[in-house]
Amino acid sequence: MRDGIRVTVWNEGVHEREMPACKALYPEGMGRVIGRHLEQQPGIASVRCVQLDDPEQGLSEEILGNTDVMTWWGHCAHHEVTDGHAARVQERVLEGMGLIVLHSGHLSKPFVRLMGTGCMLKWREWQGVGERERLWVVDPAHPIVDGIPERIEIEHAEMYGEHFDIPQPDQQVFISWFQGGEVFRSGCCWHRGRGKVFYFRPGHETFPIFHDETILKVICNGVKWAAPSVVQGGIQRDHFEPPLEPIG
Amino acid sequence: MRDGIRVTVWNEGVHEREMPACKALYPEGMGRVIGRHLEQQPGIASVRCVQLDDPEQGLSEEILGNTDVMTWWGHCAHHEVTDGHAARVQERVLEGMGLIVLHSGHLSKPFVRLMGTGCMLKWREWQGVGERERLWVVDPAHPIVDGIPERIEIEHAEMYGEHFDIPQPDQQVFISWFQGGEVFRSGCCWHRGRGKVFYFRPGHETFPIFHDETILKVICNGVKWAAPSVVQGGIQRDHFEPPLEPIG
Amino acid sequence: MRDGIRVTVWNEGVHEREMPACKALYPEGMGRVIGRHLEQQPGIASVRCVQLDDPEQGLSEEILGNTDVMTWWGHCAHHEVTDGHAARVQERVLEGMGLIVLHSGHLSKPFVRLMGTGCMLKWREWQGVGERERLWVVDPAHPIVDGIPERIEIEHAEMYGEHFDIPQPDQQVFISWFQGGEVFRSGCCWHRGRGKVFYFRPGHETFPIFHDETILKVICNGVKWAAPSVVQGGIQRDHFEPPLEPIG
Amino acid sequence: MRDGIRVTVWNEGVHEREMPACKALYPEGMGRVIGRHLEQQPGIASVRCVQLDDPEQGLSEEILGNTDVMTWWGHCAHHEVTDGHAARVQERVLEGMGLIVLHSGHLSKPFVRLMGTGCMLKWREWQGVGERERLWVVDPAHPIVDGIPERIEIEHAEMYGEHFDIPQPDQQVFISWFQGGEVFRSGCCWHRGRGKVFYFRPGHETFPIFHDETILKVICNGVKWAAPSVVQGGIQRDHFEPPLEPIG
Repeated sequence: MRDGIRVTVWNEGVHEREMPACKALYPEGMGRVIGRHLEQQPGIASVRCVQLDDPEQGLSEEILGNTDVMTWWGHCAHHEVTDGHAARVQERVLEGMGLIVLHSGHLSKPFVRLMGTGCMLKWREWQGVGERERLWVVDPAHPIVDGIPERIEIEHAEMYGEHFDIPQPDQQVFISWFQGGEVFRSGCCWHRGRGKVFYFRPGHETFPIFHDETILKVICNGVKWAAPSVVQGGIQRDHFEPPLEPIG
Repeated sequence: MRDGIRVTVWNEGVHEREMPACKALYPEGMGRVIGRHLEQQPGIASVRCVQLDDPEQGLSEEILGNTDVMTWWGHCAHHEVTDGHAARVQERVLEGMGLIVLHSGHLSKPFVRLMGTGCMLKWREWQGVGERERLWVVDPAHPIVDGIPERIEIEHAEMYGEHFDIPQPDQQVFISWFQGGEVFRSGCCWHRGRGKVFYFRPGHETFPIFHDETILKVICNGVKWAAPSVVQGGIQRDHFEPPLEPIG
Repeated sequence: MRDGIRVTVWNEGVHEREMPACKALYPEGMGRVIGRHLEQQPGIASVRCVQLDDPEQGLSEEILGNTDVMTWWGHCAHHEVTDGHAARVQERVLEGMGLIVLHSGHLSKPFVRLMGTGCMLKWREWQGVGERERLWVVDPAHPIVDGIPERIEIEHAEMYGEHFDIPQPDQQVFISWFQGGEVFRSGCCWHRGRGKVFYFRPGHETFPIFHDETILKVICNGVKWAAPSVVQGGIQRDHFEPPLEPIG
Repeated sequence: MRDGIRVTVWNEGVHEREMPACKALYPEGMGRVIGRHLEQQPGIASVRCVQLDDPEQGLSEEILGNTDVMTWWGHCAHHEVTDGHAARVQERVLEGMGLIVLHSGHLSKPFVRLMGTGCMLKWREWQGVGERERLWVVDPAHPIVDGIPERIEIEHAEMYGEHFDIPQPDQQVFISWFQGGEVFRSGCCWHRGRGKVFYFRPGHETFPIFHDETILKVICNGVKWAAPSVVQGGIQRDHFEPPLEPIG
């Protein structure tokens, strides 16, 4: 690992522009809130906030090539991210970039490509106020729960319910309870190629969840967990390999 | 599970036509050899052999809709399988169809889509005769090794070496040793959606590996393991769900 | 696999004798109810019901040596099972016997030995009537949920809550929601040596849960999943192995 | 995580005393060699070296209570470690202490208790000079391989061969190739309770493997990976929990 982690916060940025309830909670956008928190944490060298309407959708080779960990929030405009850009993000993860996928990013193109499954789920935003969610830690040995209590309560949340169509997580960190009767695997880790992926469920355009210190701390822990190692050699390419031992 | 498993053996079928060494070993094609073995096994209701130059590339809705488990062998023509057909296979796996991916199928479109990674590896077909491979069982509790000895030896094999760029298998069944100095995760299981995927490394167009009874037995065990359950309800779609419990 | 599975249902049998509420629900014991269901299922060759006050605590060499899958229910008398008998059950699992651990068996000696962790949890039997539990299927590809709906509701259940101190399951099948606000990993699978272990949470001495057809079906599916393969050779012993290849 | 990791290097210390070949390679003991390397690494606050013939076998409450990560090497005297001390190590791991188990520690009491399986394997120390081992990285995203090449070669090693009777690792990091024809899962990670366990195969009393800089680097990476998080609250104990939500 380098001296500090270079983070890029990718934020769709559409709801903040078009939805008064979202703009009221996040006048500068959800991405900025996450970014401001991260840039004050030890071990984080730099934070860059980008969004969908940036040049190259905020996903240029220059940006991706200088990102150790990317956080991703998207919802209503998943389809606008070009297939080429989604493939580029996927490729960078396989090369080592960490990816933190937040809430409705479950149907973002990069996440769905990396999972290989449908990634669909049940959802409910109950009468505009949502319902209570309680995230339980089920792997207290995991670095992502460093300093986190055994449960996190969110008073007003959109519900996401199982079956969540993902590959079984390599490490299951949180499971959510919802007032309306559902459960959800809400903190999930995978290694993919040389990179790491953390899906974290909380966060919604019309709830102040990204102002919650505990939620921000989990995201920060996730960034640290997902930071790439300095691995010798490059990504595997299909290639002929001469023998290391005599044959025949 | 139904009374018997309906298997479709998908075989690329190009080497058998164009490569004398392959035609000599498999005059009817590798697919037929696998198919003939499977159709004699108890628990298997029917076997259909299809290939790339069939109508709709052997991957019509009718065929996929009536297949419980598909085996897949491809190599030189992966790119000819259309993206639409590859997506259809992936979708059917998520709905419950088992998929047994053999040898060079590691770079087939359906497998790469289901894995979400590069799936690349090191390879070596040494001087036309290959080298010794020895597959060791590392999960003796797994149904795929039912009746299989603790190691399988193959005298003449193409080498595949790590790093094999796949998601960590849900269940690791075999690991291969190669004479030239490499190892390889050669029997790997994953659940994906309602379906199951088994990657099994042995098998090559110019070696008689698919005539080996033990290899065929592993493939048959894989078919049985991958057979779908009769699950109530359908595949998860992203949808609104009314609450099961009173809220607020 | 043999022609049919030989099941032994191990039941502690103390509550049924000493607790009127339990005796009223299970006059012949919980074990008999499970046993009667299993013996009527296809694929099950025989069912033997044993309990703690049987000779050798129902865990003689003869019994264990002729059991393919054992189900285990215990609660108030875990400590009475001798260490020698617990070790014998553990050893038989490593040799291939399947073990289905039910409800309060989470602190039984064989289970704790096989897990290597504390296996502790939060619990609550609310005011004698319990509370609502809803088990959600999170791995619809798993044979244990064959024919099971996407959720199972139990109106009156004792609560078990996370953190459940177990090794991460090899396969996570069910997650429970509880009315009082907790979640629990309530259907968990592990391979251990040549054997398989399934922990299934429902079932309690004062609730009629083992009369529920869906619960019994899951137990039966678990028995079938845990049935041993016929593996060639015996369990691994630490031993010298001559080389298979020339050295030096 | 604290400011620095407090490491205890536990070394059996019998071969170094009784075996000239071992004494010649490790005059101060294998433990000291590992300890000297670790104490020079950034992030490591302190290193204490203990051994079997220390008071309380080097496993006093005081020592364990002030250890973040323990490394363990033992071989001929596993049985001399008391059951009480082994249970204390196991308990400390469940509370959060990291444990790095080296080579023949595979049959040490703490490791076997934590795994719940037999932990046996095939072995061969060929004609006193051993044979070539090559460890391949199979999870290049893992922090334990930070700065490690894609393969590590050891010219003279004792062979350990599969089946290694352990629970499937939560993360499989290295797989070994041996000249004599075997493979082995030689770098394995597990979470257990609040603690982490890393088994790393290399290292032998009559080979200079613990003088190898790459091997020492992996051990140091393992120590960092296994360092405990500061988790709020204590280890789970079986206890009554009042409801968080109204019931009934």
